[in-house]
Amino acid sequence: LHLDSLDVLKNIQTFSQRGKMIRGGLVALSYTLFTPTVRSSIMEEITRIGAALELLQSSLLIHDDIMDRDTIRRGVYSFYYNYHEIAKKRSLRDPYHTGESLGICGGDIAFFLAFDILSTLHLNNEMNMEILGLCAREMFIVGVAQMLDVYRGADTAMLDENAIINLYMYKTGRYTYALPLKIGALISNIDYHYMHTLQTVGELLGTVFQIVDDDIGLFGNEEEAGKPIGSDLKEGKKTLYLCKIYNKAGEKDRERICSCLGNSQITMKGIEYIRSLVIRLGVRDELYKQSLEMTDRAYSLAASLPIVSEKAKDIFHWFIDFNMKRMK
Amino acid sequence: LHLDSLDVLKNIQTFSQRGKMIRGGLVALSYTLFTPTVRSSIMEEITRIGAALELLQSSLLIHDDIMDRDTIRRGVYSFYYNYHEIAKKRSLRDPYHTGESLGICGGDIAFFLAFDILSTLHLNNEMNMEILGLCAREMFIVGVAQMLDVYRGADTAMLDENAIINLYMYKTGRYTYALPLKIGALISNIDYHYMHTLQTVGELLGTVFQIVDDDIGLFGNEEEAGKPIGSDLKEGKKTLYLCKIYNKAGEKDRERICSCLGNSQITMKGIEYIRSLVIRLGVRDELYKQSLEMTDRAYSLAASLPIVSEKAKDIFHWFIDFNMKRMK
Repeated sequence: LHLDSLDVLKNIQTFSQRGKMIRGGLVALSYTLFTPTVRSSIMEEITRIGAALELLQSSLLIHDDIMDRDTIRRGVYSFYYNYHEIAKKRSLRDPYHTGESLGICGGDIAFFLAFDILSTLHLNNEMNMEILGLCAREMFIVGVAQMLDVYRGADTAMLDENAIINLYMYKTGRYTYALPLKIGALISNIDYHYMHTLQTVGELLGTVFQIVDDDIGLFGNEEEAGKPIGSDLKEGKKTLYLCKIYNKAGEKDRERICSCLGNSQITMKGIEYIRSLVIRLGVRDELYKQSLEMTDRAYSLAASLPIVSEKAKDIFHWFIDFNMKRMK
Repeated sequence: LHLDSLDVLKNIQTFSQRGKMIRGGLVALSYTLFTPTVRSSIMEEITRIGAALELLQSSLLIHDDIMDRDTIRRGVYSFYYNYHEIAKKRSLRDPYHTGESLGICGGDIAFFLAFDILSTLHLNNEMNMEILGLCAREMFIVGVAQMLDVYRGADTAMLDENAIINLYMYKTGRYTYALPLKIGALISNIDYHYMHTLQTVGELLGTVFQIVDDDIGLFGNEEEAGKPIGSDLKEGKKTLYLCKIYNKAGEKDRERICSCLGNSQITMKGIEYIRSLVIRLGVRDELYKQSLEMTDRAYSLAASLPIVSEKAKDIFHWFIDFNMKRMK
């Protein structure tokens, strides 16, 4: 069995290294927040957990791109699309579908690599199992949230704003923020009753992160976003921005909004139209304010956590600020 | 988040229950073979491991069917195709792709459920982690083997027989047979040096199983196979049968074989042609003999294993026979 004949390990590695590595970093941050004397042997284990979380993230993104038919991710060809190009070059049958199939396998392989790493942790045995279980359960929730996302993207009906906020909370809040924060806290052995607060902080920060992401996807440039501008629109993604302008718009604008949504042929003029509506109807300001409020709530909740030093507090506050400030 | 809105848990359960449950059963069998006094508390843990293995198998099949565009599995609509039907009924955009996307998520969810179960085992802690690691690593190998399978299916070049036997060994031998046998033996605490023998026994039995599966896919009926007859041909699968007739055939037959392979429009006449070649060129007899030889090798290897009683030996021998006898 020639494991490297399709360079899958190299491709997964390259793909993973292009990420922002938020998750891996957050485990280390959280451990530092709650541990008076940081131990380097534990930091080594945390590095491995971080690597596993990044692999889990890679696998989700690899599968997401197939579902969304995104050809660009993190500034280069998406994982499956890269295999599509290889399949085309080598004159394989049905190159697009072959690329998709190899992408499904590649995502699966990244999942297994992540769980393989987690199965070789050297923390205490109960902690090892608890971390594994946390990861498996949060990934389960992301999977279900992703199904809903796919379903709603394909549905022509508009959504209410709460449904979208909920999805952001589960897809990004729980998994990208709360999970690594909780793992770090678990390793620090902090009292269990803080876990719930930490989870809420993670959910708030994750929701803000997602709103900022939507903003960059609409107003940012391709380089910042790592994907073509307007791709959310093309895929029919019902972002908070879109939902809010729809709810505020008149009959005529609603029709035009719907004709933009899920339209893979949308022009720059169409994108400009959506942008101007977002600003004119005050939606951008509104979401900026909402993000600020959620950030403030995260701040106050963080004040009740048993963070070990003023310096650690400063770092956490810097992180909370940074999360918001990506949106200029 | 309405977890049940797409009935994903129910669908995964229904799907998993239609399987042959070989993997789950094999863990219990293996534990029984090597343990003088079977403990019911351990049997409960084994049942949970069995459930996890069945979920892992379900997730692989769910993803496989998307790759192979199989609409029927285990006698009913395949997992993704069922969602395609739902998407069509509910007038969702792009129902086929929506079905595929929901299927990718469903497979992922089944993976995470499996690892969630494994993370709550109550054997001793080191054993728990070792079982988890074994599963993750074997799944990794299946993923890589599946990539090769996809690649070769899309490639127009023919393969040599050894490459196919290798693939059978990795895709079915290691994962369907060797993995559960090794887990059962691990729980029985048998000496590590027997593990290698057990792995070889698993590889042999799995390869035979796969050959029998190919035979049923070509000569059996739809009910036995759980999928339409000739679907391997339609998907361009380079089975041992196909490879062997190709290697033995003359120029003219080779051309016709190639025109059948990967032809989604293949008629019953085309299938009959392949069947008659398989018999006429002596390939069916040859593969029957090869399977018998592999079964015999598994027998002799099994004789060196520390099986605890004559009764246990009888059960194992019955299983080895049954594995072969599916091919009448």
